[in-house]
Amino acid sequence: MTERLLTFPTLNQTQTDALKAQGIDVVPATDWETATDIDIIFGWSQHGAAVLQNPQNHVRWIQTVSAGVDYLPLDWIRAHDVQVTNASGAYSAAIAESTIGYLLYFLRDFNDAVKNQAGHFWQVPARTELATLANQKIVIYGTGSIGQHIAELLNGFGSYPFGVNRSGHGVNGFQGTVSMEDDADLVKDADVVINAMPATPTTIHYFNETYFNQLNGVRIFVNVGRGKSVDEAALMHALLYQNVLNAALDVFENEPLPRESKLWDYPNVLITPHQSGFDVDNIRALFGYLSDNLQSWETDGKLTVNVVDVNRGY
Amino acid sequence: MTERLLTFPTLNQTQTDALKAQGIDVVPATDWETATDIDIIFGWSQHGAAVLQNPQNHVRWIQTVSAGVDYLPLDWIRAHDVQVTNASGAYSAAIAESTIGYLLYFLRDFNDAVKNQAGHFWQVPARTELATLANQKIVIYGTGSIGQHIAELLNGFGSYPFGVNRSGHGVNGFQGTVSMEDDADLVKDADVVINAMPATPTTIHYFNETYFNQLNGVRIFVNVGRGKSVDEAALMHALLYQNVLNAALDVFENEPLPRESKLWDYPNVLITPHQSGFDVDNIRALFGYLSDNLQSWETDGKLTVNVVDVNRGY
Repeated sequence: MTERLLTFPTLNQTQTDALKAQGIDVVPATDWETATDIDIIFGWSQHGAAVLQNPQNHVRWIQTVSAGVDYLPLDWIRAHDVQVTNASGAYSAAIAESTIGYLLYFLRDFNDAVKNQAGHFWQVPARTELATLANQKIVIYGTGSIGQHIAELLNGFGSYPFGVNRSGHGVNGFQGTVSMEDDADLVKDADVVINAMPATPTTIHYFNETYFNQLNGVRIFVNVGRGKSVDEAALMHALLYQNVLNAALDVFENEPLPRESKLWDYPNVLITPHQSGFDVDNIRALFGYLSDNLQSWETDGKLTVNVVDVNRGY
Repeated sequence: MTERLLTFPTLNQTQTDALKAQGIDVVPATDWETATDIDIIFGWSQHGAAVLQNPQNHVRWIQTVSAGVDYLPLDWIRAHDVQVTNASGAYSAAIAESTIGYLLYFLRDFNDAVKNQAGHFWQVPARTELATLANQKIVIYGTGSIGQHIAELLNGFGSYPFGVNRSGHGVNGFQGTVSMEDDADLVKDADVVINAMPATPTTIHYFNETYFNQLNGVRIFVNVGRGKSVDEAALMHALLYQNVLNAALDVFENEPLPRESKLWDYPNVLITPHQSGFDVDNIRALFGYLSDNLQSWETDGKLTVNVVDVNRGY
């Protein structure tokens, strides 16, 4: 029996033909409301839940185009035995490059330079205001695909970061790892803290007032994980009281970041609009995950690439 | 006989004591006008030439605190057999980190983000506007200490640059090198061009109108070499006509860059005020060169570290 796949991303002709050759009936996103008998969803949108829960459909698998899956109706998915595969890894290399860029933006004093440039000010900083990546104590929360890619790039700068994960298990590229419960000693003299954790019940508002209060002038805080991991009010407080000196934020509690958010105007904050994983080659990678999973799905009903544990949430 | 060293950088007590222990009489910069019998100059200033050419002195060695020495009165130096050692290498690691930062600033679309942030605009770029370092064709002019440090960091991103030097000799970390005469084929489809050459008669205005006209939309042009290597009028023309799409400039034909320069207002140019080599550890490295050279100078009158060929100019 032919399986029907509803795709939210627009596929080009080559991609559509490739799916047809795998025996798949491709339904474009524009037909989401009228289509029936959908077996597979590729991607997601505000109509995703309606397609998933439509009794005329019988969705058994969702291939997301994101690494995080916290926006999916996970309770419903668990109750109905829907399988989920995510796009973990598709963005990791690009996110890691963005992260190195965020660090150098502040360490090499570009943040002052762009402001001075706007006013035509040739304002030479003191030598002591600039530092190198090689000499920072860096702590990365999350040692999965993103964290490992960041560590790998840091290693090329002669920098060996510390990692924080659930169990404290060791990971390649890190000079040491601790569990989330045991991070206090590690971060109290950290120069750089990077969040690359998924959003799960454990990580929501992990970076809160109590967390930031234990920091002693962290030079740069980076969030390329999930916006909900950070209590933004607490972060703004930490920036004012210099527990954190600078921050680069790609994700936010509410996206788009509301125009009235005070974060926009913090002179020591760099805001990018959830773009850190973007790359001209993204679509190719995402379609590759779908194709690979389809192959095993058609063969024996199993999914092999980036299978999500829907109970854990990642 | 005790040698007298005039130092333009202010030394701390530990450094002064260390020089005295090596049998050196240290003369601070403030005494430049009245001091006599100076043998060695450390650093330089607008009074450097007066000290050097004062007949009451007999300077035989200048240890600079810069990599380039083009600002020294080289004709006089050649005529009077003064030896010159430079600070080549002291800044290379920091300049290389700055250079990676410049590239990521544009590749990861921070340049648009900082402008949008000022207006509170959540403006998500197209995925196709962002790219990764790993996928760029990068050409580095100058394969000395700075160029090699840049190449080494790029290698950590899975990027293997091409090099351009005088003879075209091969250098570690580069996937290939050509001579300056043979660069046309290499640059016509380059994504990134980086200048890390010293200022010599050969390199002055090397990057001129003819040079830029052969480029086909180079994504990023970086100058961390010398300002005089670039004809700024020609660069501005290339930016307008999109032979070059973005530029990061740390050095300029005239420094400070005049307030009335049009470069300040180019939206696709990042200007930093000759700071790319700055690092909190600079002074320690510079003093190390002086100390090491003093040791051999006192032993057998020879200089061993960073000896400049004053005929070549570097």
